This record gives sequence, structure tokens and C-alpha cells, in this order.
Amino acid sequence: MLLDLNTIRSADKRIRPYIHRTPVLTSSRLNEASGASLFFKCENFQKIGAFKARGATNAVFSLDDATARSGVATHSSGNHGAAVARGAKLRGIPAHIVMPSNSAKVKIRAVESYGAHIVFCEPTEEAREVACAEVIKKTGATLIHSFENEDVMAGQGTAAMELLEDVPDLDLVMCPVGGGGLLSGTAIAGKSMRPKIKVIAVEPQNVDDAAQSFRAGRRLVTEKKFTMADGLRTNIGEPNFAITQRYVDDIVTVSEEAIVSAMRTIWETMKIIIEPSAAVPYAAIQEAKIDVNANRVGIILTGGNVDLDALPWNCSRDR
Amino acid sequence: MLLDLNTIRSADKRIRPYIHRTPVLTSSRLNEASGASLFFKCENFQKIGAFKARGATNAVFSLDDATARSGVATHSSGNHGAAVARGAKLRGIPAHIVMPSNSAKVKIRAVESYGAHIVFCEPTEEAREVACAEVIKKTGATLIHSFENEDVMAGQGTAAMELLEDVPDLDLVMCPVGGGGLLSGTAIAGKSMRPKIKVIAVEPQNVDDAAQSFRAGRRLVTEKKFTMADGLRTNIGEPNFAITQRYVDDIVTVSEEAIVSAMRTIWETMKIIIEPSAAVPYAAIQEAKIDVNANRVGIILTGGNVDLDALPWNCSRDR
Repeated sequence: MLLDLNTIRSADKRIRPYIHRTPVLTSSRLNEASGASLFFKCENFQKIGAFKARGATNAVFSLDDATARSGVATHSSGNHGAAVARGAKLRGIPAHIVMPSNSAKVKIRAVESYGAHIVFCEPTEEAREVACAEVIKKTGATLIHSFENEDVMAGQGTAAMELLEDVPDLDLVMCPVGGGGLLSGTAIAGKSMRPKIKVIAVEPQNVDDAAQSFRAGRRLVTEKKFTMADGLRTNIGEPNFAITQRYVDDIVTVSEEAIVSAMRTIWETMKIIIEPSAAVPYAAIQEAKIDVNANRVGIILTGGNVDLDALPWNCSRDR
Repeated sequence: MLLDLNTIRSADKRIRPYIHRTPVLTSSRLNEASGASLFFKCENFQKIGAFKARGATNAVFSLDDATARSGVATHSSGNHGAAVARGAKLRGIPAHIVMPSNSAKVKIRAVESYGAHIVFCEPTEEAREVACAEVIKKTGATLIHSFENEDVMAGQGTAAMELLEDVPDLDLVMCPVGGGGLLSGTAIAGKSMRPKIKVIAVEPQNVDDAAQSFRAGRRLVTEKKFTMADGLRTNIGEPNFAITQRYVDDIVTVSEEAIVSAMRTIWETMKIIIEPSAAVPYAAIQEAKIDVNANRVGIILTGGNVDLDALPWNCSRDR
């Protein structure tokens, strides 16, 4: 395992010209409501609207010139695809993005806007991997996996690094967990920069493989139900789980209702737009799944890419 | 006329402990789209969710102790009522807020949350004024008018003052106009701090009394149609129009469609929540109602209090 604070600091230097140093916002109302001091790292304001710009940019710019010339490839229905496409455009190399045929139009347009080559496939995990392997075979492109890639994890870790530079005395840092790329970077940055910090991940209970694996002490593949937190539907990756076992203090789960409520609370109180996945950590606080009393708590708001025509509270009204 | 940069600076000192110094945000995408450098002063992040906290707080804290003890009163269906209620709570004096009986529940709850006494009335301008006069007669409270009060105007001017402190070399500053409280403060702060700055106000064309008055050279009361920019339905005030004639370079108008489009663009691009009234200046840029080419443009985003169950693009979908 090469990922450590040094690789995160190197990632920071590498991606600095291409990403935002996002602001850390606070809310006296949410502090009152939670009984803690909350510090929100606003990756919804990041390039492409999500923290994924960090890891993908680091991975694309870590390639040597000869390798880079053949391009990069990934499969993604979400923010990682746009992040890889943007990174490749910035470096001036080809990008091949495999997307399920039922991807949201807004996500397809985002990838297209960076001039990437899109390959559509059936909307299954297997079809995505097969299509991606084919593209790589044909083009010689390098796979940029969305969370099992160490350069990606190091890039994602720069969000927590910046947060701890701005607010050094945090007691706790929280982020959501899907594949575990952000969690890996966050845990290593957090424990390296402030050894006594607690790192807690939060997962929708409908896709709770990481939480179940964490309790079992081995990586389980669990049954998935629907979650509106579409960034978190993936199983936690192998290297990501290893890091989680070593550095993460706990993984808690939250209901879909709590996610909608937390998302709406943050929209109404902080006047910022976050996507459902980004609301998951605050949902754990609102649902009292963890004790934050009087603590200084950092929360990574992972992204802000939402379909404004299909907001969860409008959908639930229609039911 | 007493309002000048000194009264705005005094207001700034007076309200500093009670309001946020809001951030100025930029967006490379909106800069590209407009061909200008845009600086958004984010009063949607202000206390009570709107710039109105500035003027009301200044007016409440400008009262001498004997006068203040009898309390304050105003009529408002919107943000000014909440702002006066909050100011009175901070000073520890009674507040009487006259609200039309059809006010949005969320606005009623906001006023209640500050412990103010609410007087409901018929939803007409006349009924509001009558009810407010009755309350004042009965209680001895001081009227805090939402835009014709000089302390209110001075407080509103602190937003433009902060903006020019942060970005001193603006070519143009823009804000919406309803009653003209914000415009008065903005124009005087702008022209005093940077004499060659242009000040342009923007108004929904469905309630274009300020624009028509500006062209006619005298204050006209015009026929009103519906506008979703509910903060801007009022006629421009008498003292506000006098200031406008002297200090404002132009008033342009925008369509309802342009307001929805600008609001949605800012939500999607900047990931921040603004109310329809706050989208009005950017609507004028998007609709090419003014020439901002290569200019450095300050825009006051006036507030972020939106009913998330009734967003304008959802309503238009239902039509």
C-alpha cells in the first residue's frame, strides 16, 4: 500500500492548477440543532460539481507521457465519468467513457461537453466492465477506476487535507461511503494529519455492504435495494476495504427518509445545492445515529449535481 | 437627504455583530457565458436568508432606548418582517408584524420563530397600512418601513459597500428594484466609493413602475401584473425614487421567462439557492438587456428564501 500523506500532498501539488480550493461553510442553525460545531467542506462547488474532479485529475496527470498519449478509459454513470473526461481534455489526450444507456441526459451532456468519446452499454455492472475492457483492448487506453485506483484515492484525500488545513482541531471527520475512494483518502489524510481524529463513514442502509463488511471483518457482497443516493450504490472496493479496516472508526447507516430530510434541511438552511449522496453524513447526525455532542465535526459535502426536475421531495409528494 | 457614505459606514459598525459578511462568489462558466467578470455578493447566505437583515437591524438599533422600549412595527409579507422581528429580538424589545392572511406558512413561521407579535390583515396594501397604523396607535411602537426609512436604506447599502471593499475595481454594480431600499443604498455606496462605477437596476417587466418612472422623470403608479419575483411587487418609494434619479444610470426590465431561466442557471451552475427576485439582475445579462462585455460586474444576490415545494420550473411543467 503506497497511499499515505505524502502521496496526498503530491496529488495536491499536481492538481492545484485544475481544481478549486473549496470553501468550508458553517451554519449557526445547524450547530444549534446538532449541539456540535459543524464544518462543511463544499465539494458541491468543485469543478464538475463534485469531489471526483480531484481523484480523476490526479490519475490523469500521474500518467507518463507515452502512456497518456494512448488515452484513458473508465466506466461511470455519474460524476467520475465527467471528471475523467475533463482531466483528459486538460491534458489533451483522448478519453473513452463507458456509460449505461439509461444514464441521465444531463450526465451524458456533461461528458460530451469535455469532448470525450462515449460508449453506451447495457445498464449492468458486468456490461460496463466488458465494454470498458473492449475499449481498452482496442485503443490501448489506461483504465482510471473510480475508486480502486491509488492515484484516485490520493486525489480524493486532498479534500480532507484542505479541510484540516482550514480547521485543524476537528474531533471527527465524516464522509459517505460507496466504493470507498473518498473514504480511503479521507481516512489517511485525517489520521495522518491529526492522529486522534475519529473517522466515521455513513452509508444508505439500502446498500449497506460497507457497514456489514466492517462489522463482519471481511468484505461481503450484499443484496442491494434502491437508494436515491446514486453515488453510493457501488460495493466497497478491495483496497478501499483494507484501508477502512485499518483507519476508519465506524460505519453507520441511514434511511432514505433521513437522506431526503437532511438534503432538504441543508438546502433550506444553508441555501446551497447538494446531491442526495452528499446529504448522507448529515442524515446520520439528524437521525442521531452518532453522538456529535459538543464536538468539532468536519463533513465532506461530496457534490451538487441534481436533476432539478426530479427532486426527492417532489417525487415523495407524488406517491 | 441625510443618506451618504458616512451613514452607511455607521450602519456597518452598528450591525456588524448581528449580520454575516457574506462571501463574493465567481463562476468561470457564467463568466464565459456572459463575456464579463461577474462577482456575486451572496446575500442568500445572510441572516434570515436575505439582505433585509441589514436594514432592519440598523433601524432597530438606531432607536434611542426610550423609543425602543415601546417596540417596533412593520407590515410585510416577506423577508423584511422576519428581519424586523429578529432585530427586535436581538435588542430585547417587542415587535408587531402585520402580515396578509394569505402569507406563505414558511414566512409566518419565520416571524413567529423570533417571538414577534403577528397581526393578520386582508391581503391589500390599504389593509396592511391601516392595520399597522392601528397597532402603532395602540402600542406606541415605531414604524420601520421596509424601504422609505433612511436607516433601512443605509443598512442595505452595507452590502454594496462590502462588495466594493472586496472587489474595488468594478465597472458596474447591479441589483433588483422593488421599493428601492436596496437600490438607494447600493447607488450611494457605489457612486461614493467609486465615482465612475455604473449603477443599473433591474425590474420584472410585469411590475415596471420604477423603469417607467425613471424614463418619465416623475414617479408613476403603474398597472401591476403577476411576477414570481415577489420581493419586487411594490412601487418604488418617494425618497427612493429621488435617489434613483440622482445616482442610478439605468433601469432595465426582464420577462418572467428570463427570471426562471436565470434562477435555474444560477442554481445549476453555482450550486446555490437564490429566490426569484435575486435572479432578476442576471436575467438582464442572459437576455442581453444590458451590455456587460469585458466589464467587471458586481451583482447583489438578494436572498435565498424559496418554497422548495413550488419551484417555478415545476409550476411551468404543470401548465
